[in-house]
This record gives sequence, structure tokens and C-alpha cells, in this order.
Amino acid sequence: MLFEKIKTPGLSHLSYLFGSNGQAAVVDPRRDCAIYIEKARAAGLKITHIFETHRNEDLVSGAPILAQLTGASVYHGPNPEREIVYAQTAREGDCFKIGQLEIQVLETPGHTFDHLAYVMFDSAYPTNAVGVFTGDALFVGDVGRTDFYPDKREEVAGLLYDSLQKIIALGDQAMIYPAHGAGSVCGSGMAEREFSSVGHEKLNNPRLQIESRDKFIRAKINENHYQPPYFKLMERINMEGGDAAPRIMRPLNLSLEQLNNCDVDHLIDIREPLAYASVHLPGSMSLPVGMISAFAGWFIAEGESIALVAADEEQLATAMTHLVRIALDNIVGGYVGLISAAKQGESIEQTPMIATEEVKSRLAGNTDFTDNATNAKNSRTWTLLDVRDLDERSESAIEESEHIYVGHLNERWRDLDRDHHYTLMCASGQRATVAAGWLASQGFQHLDIYLGGMSAWQAEQE
Amino acid sequence: MLFEKIKTPGLSHLSYLFGSNGQAAVVDPRRDCAIYIEKARAAGLKITHIFETHRNEDLVSGAPILAQLTGASVYHGPNPEREIVYAQTAREGDCFKIGQLEIQVLETPGHTFDHLAYVMFDSAYPTNAVGVFTGDALFVGDVGRTDFYPDKREEVAGLLYDSLQKIIALGDQAMIYPAHGAGSVCGSGMAEREFSSVGHEKLNNPRLQIESRDKFIRAKINENHYQPPYFKLMERINMEGGDAAPRIMRPLNLSLEQLNNCDVDHLIDIREPLAYASVHLPGSMSLPVGMISAFAGWFIAEGESIALVAADEEQLATAMTHLVRIALDNIVGGYVGLISAAKQGESIEQTPMIATEEVKSRLAGNTDFTDNATNAKNSRTWTLLDVRDLDERSESAIEESEHIYVGHLNERWRDLDRDHHYTLMCASGQRATVAAGWLASQGFQHLDIYLGGMSAWQAEQE
Amino acid sequence: MLFEKIKTPGLSHLSYLFGSNGQAAVVDPRRDCAIYIEKARAAGLKITHIFETHRNEDLVSGAPILAQLTGASVYHGPNPEREIVYAQTAREGDCFKIGQLEIQVLETPGHTFDHLAYVMFDSAYPTNAVGVFTGDALFVGDVGRTDFYPDKREEVAGLLYDSLQKIIALGDQAMIYPAHGAGSVCGSGMAEREFSSVGHEKLNNPRLQIESRDKFIRAKINENHYQPPYFKLMERINMEGGDAAPRIMRPLNLSLEQLNNCDVDHLIDIREPLAYASVHLPGSMSLPVGMISAFAGWFIAEGESIALVAADEEQLATAMTHLVRIALDNIVGGYVGLISAAKQGESIEQTPMIATEEVKSRLAGNTDFTDNATNAKNSRTWTLLDVRDLDERSESAIEESEHIYVGHLNERWRDLDRDHHYTLMCASGQRATVAAGWLASQGFQHLDIYLGGMSAWQAEQE
Amino acid sequence: MLFEKIKTPGLSHLSYLFGSNGQAAVVDPRRDCAIYIEKARAAGLKITHIFETHRNEDLVSGAPILAQLTGASVYHGPNPEREIVYAQTAREGDCFKIGQLEIQVLETPGHTFDHLAYVMFDSAYPTNAVGVFTGDALFVGDVGRTDFYPDKREEVAGLLYDSLQKIIALGDQAMIYPAHGAGSVCGSGMAEREFSSVGHEKLNNPRLQIESRDKFIRAKINENHYQPPYFKLMERINMEGGDAAPRIMRPLNLSLEQLNNCDVDHLIDIREPLAYASVHLPGSMSLPVGMISAFAGWFIAEGESIALVAADEEQLATAMTHLVRIALDNIVGGYVGLISAAKQGESIEQTPMIATEEVKSRLAGNTDFTDNATNAKNSRTWTLLDVRDLDERSESAIEESEHIYVGHLNERWRDLDRDHHYTLMCASGQRATVAAGWLASQGFQHLDIYLGGMSAWQAEQE
Repeated sequence: MLFEKIKTPGLSHLSYLFGSNGQAAVVDPRRDCAIYIEKARAAGLKITHIFETHRNEDLVSGAPILAQLTGASVYHGPNPEREIVYAQTAREGDCFKIGQLEIQVLETPGHTFDHLAYVMFDSAYPTNAVGVFTGDALFVGDVGRTDFYPDKREEVAGLLYDSLQKIIALGDQAMIYPAHGAGSVCGSGMAEREFSSVGHEKLNNPRLQIESRDKFIRAKINENHYQPPYFKLMERINMEGGDAAPRIMRPLNLSLEQLNNCDVDHLIDIREPLAYASVHLPGSMSLPVGMISAFAGWFIAEGESIALVAADEEQLATAMTHLVRIALDNIVGGYVGLISAAKQGESIEQTPMIATEEVKSRLAGNTDFTDNATNAKNSRTWTLLDVRDLDERSESAIEESEHIYVGHLNERWRDLDRDHHYTLMCASGQRATVAAGWLASQGFQHLDIYLGGMSAWQAEQE
Repeated sequence: MLFEKIKTPGLSHLSYLFGSNGQAAVVDPRRDCAIYIEKARAAGLKITHIFETHRNEDLVSGAPILAQLTGASVYHGPNPEREIVYAQTAREGDCFKIGQLEIQVLETPGHTFDHLAYVMFDSAYPTNAVGVFTGDALFVGDVGRTDFYPDKREEVAGLLYDSLQKIIALGDQAMIYPAHGAGSVCGSGMAEREFSSVGHEKLNNPRLQIESRDKFIRAKINENHYQPPYFKLMERINMEGGDAAPRIMRPLNLSLEQLNNCDVDHLIDIREPLAYASVHLPGSMSLPVGMISAFAGWFIAEGESIALVAADEEQLATAMTHLVRIALDNIVGGYVGLISAAKQGESIEQTPMIATEEVKSRLAGNTDFTDNATNAKNSRTWTLLDVRDLDERSESAIEESEHIYVGHLNERWRDLDRDHHYTLMCASGQRATVAAGWLASQGFQHLDIYLGGMSAWQAEQE
Repeated sequence: MLFEKIKTPGLSHLSYLFGSNGQAAVVDPRRDCAIYIEKARAAGLKITHIFETHRNEDLVSGAPILAQLTGASVYHGPNPEREIVYAQTAREGDCFKIGQLEIQVLETPGHTFDHLAYVMFDSAYPTNAVGVFTGDALFVGDVGRTDFYPDKREEVAGLLYDSLQKIIALGDQAMIYPAHGAGSVCGSGMAEREFSSVGHEKLNNPRLQIESRDKFIRAKINENHYQPPYFKLMERINMEGGDAAPRIMRPLNLSLEQLNNCDVDHLIDIREPLAYASVHLPGSMSLPVGMISAFAGWFIAEGESIALVAADEEQLATAMTHLVRIALDNIVGGYVGLISAAKQGESIEQTPMIATEEVKSRLAGNTDFTDNATNAKNSRTWTLLDVRDLDERSESAIEESEHIYVGHLNERWRDLDRDHHYTLMCASGQRATVAAGWLASQGFQHLDIYLGGMSAWQAEQE
Repeated sequence: MLFEKIKTPGLSHLSYLFGSNGQAAVVDPRRDCAIYIEKARAAGLKITHIFETHRNEDLVSGAPILAQLTGASVYHGPNPEREIVYAQTAREGDCFKIGQLEIQVLETPGHTFDHLAYVMFDSAYPTNAVGVFTGDALFVGDVGRTDFYPDKREEVAGLLYDSLQKIIALGDQAMIYPAHGAGSVCGSGMAEREFSSVGHEKLNNPRLQIESRDKFIRAKINENHYQPPYFKLMERINMEGGDAAPRIMRPLNLSLEQLNNCDVDHLIDIREPLAYASVHLPGSMSLPVGMISAFAGWFIAEGESIALVAADEEQLATAMTHLVRIALDNIVGGYVGLISAAKQGESIEQTPMIATEEVKSRLAGNTDFTDNATNAKNSRTWTLLDVRDLDERSESAIEESEHIYVGHLNERWRDLDRDHHYTLMCASGQRATVAAGWLASQGFQHLDIYLGGMSAWQAEQE
């Protein structure tokens, strides 16, 4: 028997391949889906079923692609909005045999209307479910978000409540296999741990401790979630069926001259935040390779062209993988080596990191600091701009700081003043660098980054 | 958070590496234990604790070796027989913090007197256990064997019953992490599936359905288990602490001349059964590479020297890994290529495969078949020798066949007659080839193998 | 600077990737050509040039596919027969810069009319060539075959002689990079060593020791070469441009039932010869995985459907790779496990291996042996059929044996008699198994294989 | 036949594994030498001979370790100074058979007194040598350095001249296999290309174009070479025989607290130069992971303890490999994540990168710049300190700059003034960062780095 969780870092997406007796199934495959076929065939199994828990909004589904490569059937929940072109509709109680395993369908709307959970039985030990693929209904430590239908927020929160009762009714013994782990944009409270059981969640998951349907609904509609613009693109693609990933998952290598002449929509520096802060190319924004999945979809729109600046070729390959998984395929190429650019006399820019002491001094009214753009004494008005999310901010904030969520700077940079000096902050300095990089790419020059951010601020207090 | 099951094929042994916040622990490590350190350090974790569920009898424990390489402490249950030199004694209720995870000790004697289960809690979600490392107490679909103390069989079976109640009391939600999966010599009824929960086992595990302690004891003492002689060696090593695995896990390459002159205790042909049957070197026994873990310990004693005959170099490397894990280290080298030996005029032997029709014909009294050794009409008495285990045999058997368990041929070949003709059979032909190979290496010449064995026999009836 | 030889086992094909300063070129790429892009990009290089030494007849060229994936230009020699659709024509003296390396074109017809050699200079050390890509003109220890234009054999042999003089004129210092190493179907006398220089070949290559153009021509037209039928297919594909290799290079897994119902043109057993001899499925031919490249093209025609029988899943993947490289893509799937088939009662066949003693006995007139098909005393006429090539046979042969080259059995099996008993022999038993397997798949039943073959025969004489 | 060049990045060291017919040899193995055995055995070969071209001064020889693991004999040239404990002495004309290859010894003193070249013949094609392992006598584009015997500089330069004649006499056809490629500390003029022949070197290698022995000697004694202190350590180890590399080639992971308490001799930041410049821990020096091999031996003495600061765990592993190869084994552990340290409120330091414009401004007398340590207007004397090597400096230099070679700062930092402000420069900024980092670790605070360095300066002029 094969049972394997395939994890997609960045997206914190979890898909599953399982099978026995020559047959296999995949739950929620990702776009670069050859891996499922390779693993199944290496284990002597033929993929015959592909199960989607719901229409994903945060990544391109590999279901239609995998179906084409294998001939397997795709199953998807009943969708009231629009047909999923490539899938058959599965409904409550439908049952599928995968070797000695059995999958039963549970309709679990809430996160989306078409959401299904797939309950797994072992026909050799059939009393009660072994596990359940919970998609974005139930996570370890959290439940799915219910903010996708703004005018039906109460309805869907209530539906999710009901769906969770169905999952709980499977029994404490059932293990849960969710579609996401900690760090996903599909929920903020997920546990670091990726394995759990219905029983353990029933006892510990904060959302399952709420005593009534009403209170649950109220809690859900008071949640703050962000919807990056690329969610709309994913939704459309995942109804129509996306294209296969490119055959070569490494970008073309660009020379400095080619980079300078490529005239792309976005020049993205994927090196680590500290390296970007130290030196970067004028006009480049910052998306460290590990943050691409979470933030590229805020700043880059469908079809826009991209060139990458990296520390080495492996970073380029990883970045391309992340971008391709969210359909940002228009990657013109990648350039390696800021130092090499500097050697050729290319002009470079810096965005200094500053520490708690300096932030305090400025908050105390000290305006006598050096401006990074002019290398002269600063003479501008200054703002400490907090780019964390609302939940973090409501927990604790520096009083004098202003707030715009990092993703919202995609539009709200227009509300800011290029003649002003901004210090960006988040919980550590990473999202602050993304924010600073985005502003720099929009022509802002008077910027620095609070290294350590809210964490350092609090450490200082202790 | 890191949680990884490391599976050792052949032995069907399951060990676990888990950790968070810079710290990690390993449960029941195997001898070639660099893998745990590599994985932990690659994840930024330091191994600080090594937990042994019991004194293993089927493989060399890597605990003392891993402890020496990492400085971690080893924990082992209280052993009434003899001190575990390299370990601290852990007792009921002892508690260890591994980052945000917590391990609590449960004394669970039965399989052995020193058996512990380690219960895992997540301090961020602390209501009831997340999971439990059950060692050889509770498997998916089975429980541990209790035949290691022949004069205390009832006592230890009773102890195991009590221990299982303690595990069950952890709650249905707790996932179980056993030390073995299907195919292990430590139990015969394990499920193919390696994941389960206490709740699912409570409902489905046949041994947990038994309604009383007494009936459980009676069931356990009526079980048939085999104890290969190497168990004694493992026991001794695992109390004293074994040596690290060799640095190079590939055997030396031998020429045909070197092979012929190396004068080893065992010449082991590790090619697939059909290739061995077709052609092999005189004096060689057959242990196909995937069967080494299960059967080498029956035929090869501590310190005995070994030369291997393989189809290619990768087989040699795999075979060495399997042998090293059970302390059969005295591997003089390996030779590749029966065809190349044949080209050099080396004399070769064959052990024909025969099919159901031929077996039936002989059972019907037809003695007019060709003897493989003489290539002439057979003139000997003939026996169909079934080498399956007692449980299989009691389920169904060919009436006229005789029975000796394949492992027991290590000694009982002496009861057989070299002038007799034997057809070896098992469920498929694989163990029959091992049996035939062992007899051939002891000078038996009039041999063939029933290909398909009991399965083919039954398929024929349908 | 990057310089890498990419070797294709089975075909013994050598291709080359080299580059510097951001730019790279490939010489004679194979069909599954992602490897060149991956390696180039990982090294920070962009493939801009693809050089073909000639229109390959033994494998599908990856040039047009690689060109499409990279935008690089393909260069090919002037072809009098027919246009190479996807390539630009390169001519004597053409010069290309690849970073600091320089490639100069040398027209070197003979093996084919369109054959080019590509001479490599290092612009930093430009006195005389560093090396030369010699394609199928000059190998280590041999020169290219000149049997592809049957009515112009003298002309092309003469052309090759002249071409070799041009290569020799590059100077002793030039290293040679041929398109094939030992074991290729493109020449039989290649050295085991794959590296050499013009100077070393001039002193040692037997073909370069011939003292005159005339004698060279005479020697060449007296050579014996075989042209498997698939050469014609390769020629056509390599003028028109072949398709990309499949995305998934592992065949679909078949159950026994699916295998039995798939009704393919060829059921190919890719296990090792000894395993095939021991047991195989009725109707299956034998092409051990390492012999596919050399022999599949004799027996399988364009578009014919194939099912594979393997020892494990890795063999299936390797076999598919080999088949795809020679455009035999119609692979319906693969089945693993003869023993498992036997367990299900599937009827099986055997083709015994016999040793020198038995062959001698039969040659001495002893007809008293067992027939494998009837398991009864043989009553048929008997022939020892040697399937080696003409060169081997002319060196030494068993007097009473008859001769048909293994590949020629693709048609000449029709000249043989199904009621006759054949013992197949070659130099070892491997090609003899292929021959026996082919005959078996054509309905011959009275077969065995001389294990060790001519080598064992000669070892016996010593 | 197997022939493989095993390259050690960082050291630009080239070792060789070759063999045929079951037997293999290694030339100049490195300390972590399991790779040679793994590769040989995977190819069915037994390592029987280990050839050292000379007593290496830049890395720990793996010869004695490999000998112990394989039983192979080590061969080394006659050493007038001191016995090589683990080796047999090979002398001019000694001959060894490795399968079908033959190795003949050529005494080639000069680089060291004990230097040998090993000439390779193929017994199947025996006219003249196929190739020659030239050690540190002849490189592609350069010859060995001759500065190791300060009082015998003319003698050894003359000896090298004579040795080179012997190598040249092998014939133009012989390929050369040197012990180093471009980037090695054993020579500065090596070509980027790692493959060549005697003939090509004879025509192109600048040192082989010198017309007389006398002029050669004069040229050699005028060369500038640096001898890092660790050369003495390597020399001693390579006469006595070094220890095997650690089993686990990943450092222990440290928490920030453990890092702060570990009290090591050196805290080494191995992140890329720009990240170090941006933010680093107080007291840490900078040795980016790719520069460890070249510069660690200048600053770290035998037995001194080391802690590493890295961007991720893979960097830690790579750094350890580099350090172990030059016997700097005392690695207490590694810490990942400057940002995480900043979050915990750890104080951090910066060393700004400045560009050409700013350097020019300062050179023009502008003292009105911000000091990184005080974040206030600079009030100190200022020096542009060039840390390139003498050869680079003699080619071109910024007039007003001062010069100390980066490696010599290991001692000469004592000559500098902590109250002074230094801008470090090299050809790009990389060695300047190493220099700045070293000064910072010695308590210097007023530092910055000229990003782009001499290259940017010259690009500006164009």
C-alpha cells in the first residue's frame, strides 16, 4: 500500500497520492504533476482517480493536466456557479474503490460551495473511517476561511459549521489529511504540525471549541482575510483547466546587457532580504525566493512579463517553480550576480536596515539621520509604516506607526508621497523588505527597513 | 515541525525522527544511523533524545551509535534481565520536551519485559495525546508476539493485554506509530497500511476484539512464531551496544578467480529466484536480495564469512546494507555475472522450475521425469516438500506433501536424504528457491521447485 | 568553462555540451534533450548553437527539439539527397564563437555525404586546435562505417580517407570527441577508452595505419556491417525533425489481465537472459533491457505496439528510455512479475540453458536428450545455430554449426522449421537468448540456449 | 573502461579515478575519499593503486585514508626531506598495470623535490602515451610554482624546467591531467579550460614558450606567490598521514543562545558578501562559503575552534566540507538566520558598500561622509586600502590607495589604526569584504567596502 503526502513549499499545499493492488488516486494535485505519475508507476500503480476537494483559489490545479497524462477521471463537487469543465460531479455518498481502499464522498460546503471531503476506508478493516481528506474545510488547528462570497458570509459560515459536524461524526479515530499546512494563505491559524485526527481536533482546534452554530458564524464573519488579486485568476483557470507546466523549469540565463534591454513589466530580485537591502538594481522589487508564493500574486498580474535577479542559478530554478504554480509563466529570464553587475559599473541602489535604537530615536523626534538616497542629512517628514496584517497589528503595535498591509501596497502606494521618508516594518523585516522593494520599484527613494521589526521592539521591552 | 517516518525495507522496520524549535528526537534508530543526523541537521535541528521502545531482537539498534555521534541521551525501559549499557532507564510518567512536542513514557511490557510506549503531546494543543510510538506492542492490524520467554508465556501475554489497555486509554484520537509494518518477522498479521489511530485499531484490530484477558492470553500462547537463531545475537548486541556500520556500504568486487579462492563459509546468490533456478554456481545458496533480511539470520551465524553473487553492482550494495543491519558484516566481497563465469568455462548448476501440471503428474505416481542432476530419467523416490510456515499450512495444504519450515532447514536438512528427489514448494516459489538453494549448498542434487506453489495449485482448482 | 560529455548507454552515443561566458553549444544531442538545457542553465549558460556532425541513422536526433525549446540554431552539413528541414547548412571554414571557444567547420564526408567535423579552438590560447568533434568519421580505435551507399561504396570510402587526412592535419595535439564509444552499432572496432588525441590515433588506430588511399578503400569495402531496418526510420525522422520525447518516461503499469487483453504486436520480456530462459510468458520475445538499443530496431517496426514484461518498475523505466530514443514509442504498458503470474496459474514456458558438455554430446550424435516443450525424449533433428556476426564467425566457429546473424532472424526465421530442434549460440548466451526468444515468439517450441557459447567452447579447449 | 575526473570546488583540485578489467587506481585523492571507493565498486572495480604526484601543501591528502579503507598501495616520489610514512617510493621507470592500462613513473621535481608525473598507456594501443598525470608540474596554461624552497629557488626552477622537457618528450598526442584547474592557490595563470594535450600546451602555454632554461629560471624566481600559514600544516599532515574525515559532514545546529555562549576562536559568517555587509553579528568575520578554501587557511590556525553563521543549513554543510578538506575540523556548530537573531533583539553591525562615485568624492578630499559605526559625520582620517595581490596591483592601481594583501592582514592588521577609517577594495568587493570582516572581528569599526572595486573603477574610465 502506498500513501504519500506531497508537500508544496511556499504554498504550504498538501496533496496526496495513495493506492494499492495496482491502482492509485491523487487528491488535489498541483500543476507540475509529473511527480504523481512517476511515483505511482515506480510503485507499480496506475492512477485511475483524481479527487479535488474544491476549486482552489491559491494555486493552479493539476487535475486536468494529470487527467490528460493518465486517462484518469477527475471528481469535483457540485458547483452552482459554473461548470468545472474537466471534472465529473461527485455527490454525497458516492463511493470509489482504489485497490483495497475505499473513498466515500462527503459534501462539505462552506469554504466554497463545491467543497467535498473524501473519507477513506480500508476494506480489510472496514469499521469506521481510517482517515478523511478535509481539503480547506478542516485544518490542523484551524478551519477554512469563509470570505469568498462577501454577500453570503453568514450563509457559508453556517454551511461550514454543518460540514464540520459531518466530519466530526466520522469518529475520533479518523485521521485528517488537509490541503494546507502552516504558512498557507488559505488560513492563518494552522498548526505547525501537519498530522492530526478528528478526535484530537475536536478537543483542541479552537474553532471546534465554539459552543454554537451562531457563535461560530459570528466568529467567522469577524475574521480578517486578504484576497490577493491572483485568486481571481486561479479561480478562472481552475474552472476551465490550466495548461501543463513548461517542460524546462529553469529560466533562461540573461547577460547584464540582455537584462537591461529586456524591458519587462517586473524586475524581481529574489535574493535574501539582507542582500537586497545591501545592494540592488534600480527599479527592482524584492521577492525573496521563499516569499514568492505568498506575495507574487499581489504585485504581478496575469501575463505580465518578469525578469529575475538571483544569487545563483538554483534560486532561479526554485523561483520559476513557485511562479509557474500560480500561473505567472511569462518569465523572460534570470540574471545572476549583483557583484558582477557592480564590477561592470552598473549603478546600484541600497535600502538600509536600521535597528530598534534608531527607530526609537526617530520616534522621539530625532530627525538628524542620513537619507539613503542622498547620503546627506535627512530633511523630510518621516513615517514608520507597519505592513503586517490586521490580526498581528491588533495584537500589538507601535503607537506612532501607520498601517498598510504589505499586499495592499500593490495599489495603495499611490496614496503615499515620494517626497516623504518611510521606514517599513513588519514582524521581522522580511515583509518590510518586500514592501520597501515594491515602493522602490515605484520610484520611492527615501526608504529604510526596521530590521527585527515588532519582534525586536518587544524583545527590547523585556 | 519535522515528523518523518524512516522505513527500513526488508526488515519492515519503522523508525521516527521528529522535532521542533531546534531540537529533535529519534525513536528506535537502525544501525546505519547517519541518515537521522543528516535529516535533522538539514532541518536545523539537534538530536538530543533517542528513545528505544524495547530491546530489539530483529535488527542492530543504532541507539548507542547515534548517541556517540550526537551526544544525545538514550532512553530504554527497565530491564530485569540485564543492564542496557548505553541507555538511561525511563519509567512510567517520565516526561521529555522536544521543542513544542512532549513525550511521556508508558510502561508497556509484554512483547518484552522492558517495553515502553512513548506518548506524544503537542504543547500548543495539549488536550490528550496526538500520537503514540507503540514499538512492538501494538501494530496496525496486529499486536506484538509474546513467545520470547517460553516459560512465562502466560505471564507476558497477560502483561501485553494490560499494556494494550493503557494504550487504548490514551483515546481514540491518538495516532499510532509502530516499530514495524507488514512483512516484518516480528508479527505475521500486520496490515499493509502503516498508519492508524488508537480508535481505528480498537474497532478493527482482531487482537483488540478479544473480549477478555484470559481469552487474549489463550490466543497468544497458541500462536506459532519462528525465532531465527540470529535473534540471540541481536539481543546480546542490543544490550551491549553495537558497532557503527562500515563507512563503505558496498562490498569489494571479486574476480571469478578471487571468488573461487576466497574459501568463505557461505556463497550467497542474491539474484532473483528465476535466475538462480536457471543457472547458479555449484555450492551457492539462494537469498534473493529482497529476502536477505528475513532469511539470512536462519542460515548464517555470527562472524561467518560471506561472498555474494549478484546480477549487478547495485544488488551487491543493497545486499550489504541488509546484512550489515543484522550484524552479518563479514562480507569478503561480491561477484557479478553468471554469464561471464559461464563464458570462462566455469561449471554451473540448475534447479528447474516445474508447474502445477507436472506436480500433479508426479503426485499421481508418474515417476517418468528427468532428473536435473543427471539429465536422465529419474529413478529416485520423490517428495513434495512444503516449506511454508505452520499458519499457512494449517489453512490449506497439498495432502501428499511433507512439511519443514524453510528456516528450520538450517538444521533439519540433516534429516533429509541426499539420494532422494525433492520438489520444494511454498506459496509462490520464492521461499522454495531459498530452501532448494540451501539444500543444494549442502550437497543435495536432485531438486526442483514448484513455481507458483500453493497459489498456483489453488488457482488451478477454481 | 563548461565541457561535458553526455553518454547514452545502450547506444554508446556521445554528445557534448560546452560553453563559456554565458553561452553554450551542444553537439549531436539525443531526443530526450532536456538534460542539455538543465545543465547549461544550472551553469549560467544559454544554449545558442546546436551542431550536428551528420544525419544520424541509429538514434533520433534531439537537434530540432532542442532548437525549439531554446531558440538555438541548428547547423548541419550540406546534404545532397534531401534537405534537413530544421537546420542551417554549415560549410567548410564557417566559424562560430561560443564564449571564449571557437568552432570551425570541416567538411568530412564519407560515413555520410553530409558529415562535418567541428574543430574547437580556445581564443585565449589560439595556436592550433584544442580538439575536434569527429562524429562518425573518426572514433577511438576505429573509423566510421561506409556501407550506407551500396552503389557508391568505393567513392564514400575514398571520401572518408580524404576526410581523415583533414582531421589528422589538425595536429597531434588535438583531442578527439567522437559521437560513439565501444558497443555502438556504428562501428565494431572502437576502443573501450573514450578519450584520445589525433596524435595517438595516428600512431595506433588500425585504420590510420593503412598505407594508401587504395588499400584503405579496399579494406573498407570488405567490411561486414549490419543495417537494422530501423535505420531507415531514423534517417527519415532525422531529416524531417522528430517529436519531443514523452513527458513521462515510465510506462503505464498493467495488471496480468490487462496484459493478456492488450493485444499488442510485441510482448517483450526485458528481464535478464537467465530469468527469461528459466520462465517466460508464452508468446513473449526476449530483449534484456541492456540489449534493447542494439536489437529492438531489428525486430520492431515503426508504430508497432509493445507491451513489456520486467523484473521491477525501474527496468520498465529504463526500457522505455531506450525505446523512445529510437522512436519506438508505442508502448502500451508494462507488467512486473513472472512469479506473480505463475501464482495466478498463468501458463509459462521455459527455454533451457545447456552447457558445453551437452553441446558436445549432441554434436557427437547423442540424440537422447529431453525436449523442453514436451518434457519427453527428443525425437527431432537438431541444429546448433550460431547467431554471431560474420566477423566473429570468421575468427572461429564450431564446425558443425549453422549460421544466421541474430538480427537477420527477423526475416529468416521463415527459413527455419518449427518441427526441428535448435540450440542457439553466440559468444556468451545473451544474443542466443534474444534469438531463441524471437523464435519462441514466432511459434518455435523446440529450443535451447548454449550458455557460455563460443567463449565457453574455447575455454574448454585450453 | 572507467576514467573520471573528480573535481573539488574551492580548491580547484582535480583527482582521477580510472580502471579496467576489475582493477582501478586513484591519482591524488582528497581527504573525503569514500567517493572513489563508491564509484569504483559501482563500476565493478577494486582500487589497488593510489598514486600521489607530490606532497600536497594545499589540502589534506586522502591517500593514507583510502589505502586503509581499500588495502591499496600508495606510491609517492622519493622525498629527500622526510619519509612519507604511508607510501612506497616510486622511481623513474616504475611500471604498474591497472587492467588494460599501464602507468609509468616519470620523476619530475621542481614544484617539490618529490614530484612525480604518471604516464598512462593503453596496452591495447601501446604506441606512445595516451596521457600523463602532471600533478603540479604542468597545468593547462601554466606551470607549477617553485617558491617552496626559498634558499634553493634557482635550483628548483631549473629542475622544473628539466621536468617539463621530460613531459614534453612524451609527444604532442599525450593528454594532460593536472592536479589543479583555474582558481587554485597553487598557481595563478591556469586556464579556465581543464583539458589539454602536451602538444597544445607546447604551442600555447606561456611558460613553455620561454626560449631557454636560464630565462625560465629568471621568470620563475620573479613570480609573486603567497603561502598561507596552513600550508605548513598540510605539509606535516601529508607526511604523517591525516585522519579520515568525520562521518557526518554537517555541523551541529546551534541556537542563538548556544552561539553566544560557545566562546570559539572564530565566529565565521559564511553568507554572501552583500548580506554580511548589510548586517552581521558583532565579532564575526566574513568568509563566504565559496571563499573558504582560498582564505580560511590565512586566518584560522590548526585546532582553533570555529562557529559558523549561515543563510541556511545547506551552506553549513558545504562550509564544513571545505574546512574539513584543509584539516580545520574543530567546528563547534553553526547558526542559521541573522534576521531571526535581530528579531530576538540581538545587536547587529553593518559594513556599508560604497560605489565609485563616493570613492572618487573621498579621494577628492571630501570628508563629509557618514561613519557606519557612529551613524554620524565622519571625522577621521581615511584610507583606501587595496587588498588584491601584487600581480593585480602591478597591472593597475588607484594611485592614492595603500596596499596590503588580504591574506597578510592576518598579521598586518596590527599595523593599522582602529581610530582610522578604512575603505577596503579588491577587484570586485569580495575579498574586500573578507578583509573588512577580518578587521571588524579584530575590533575595527570604521570600515566600508568599495563595491565593484578596481573593475568598477576601470569601467567608469571607459
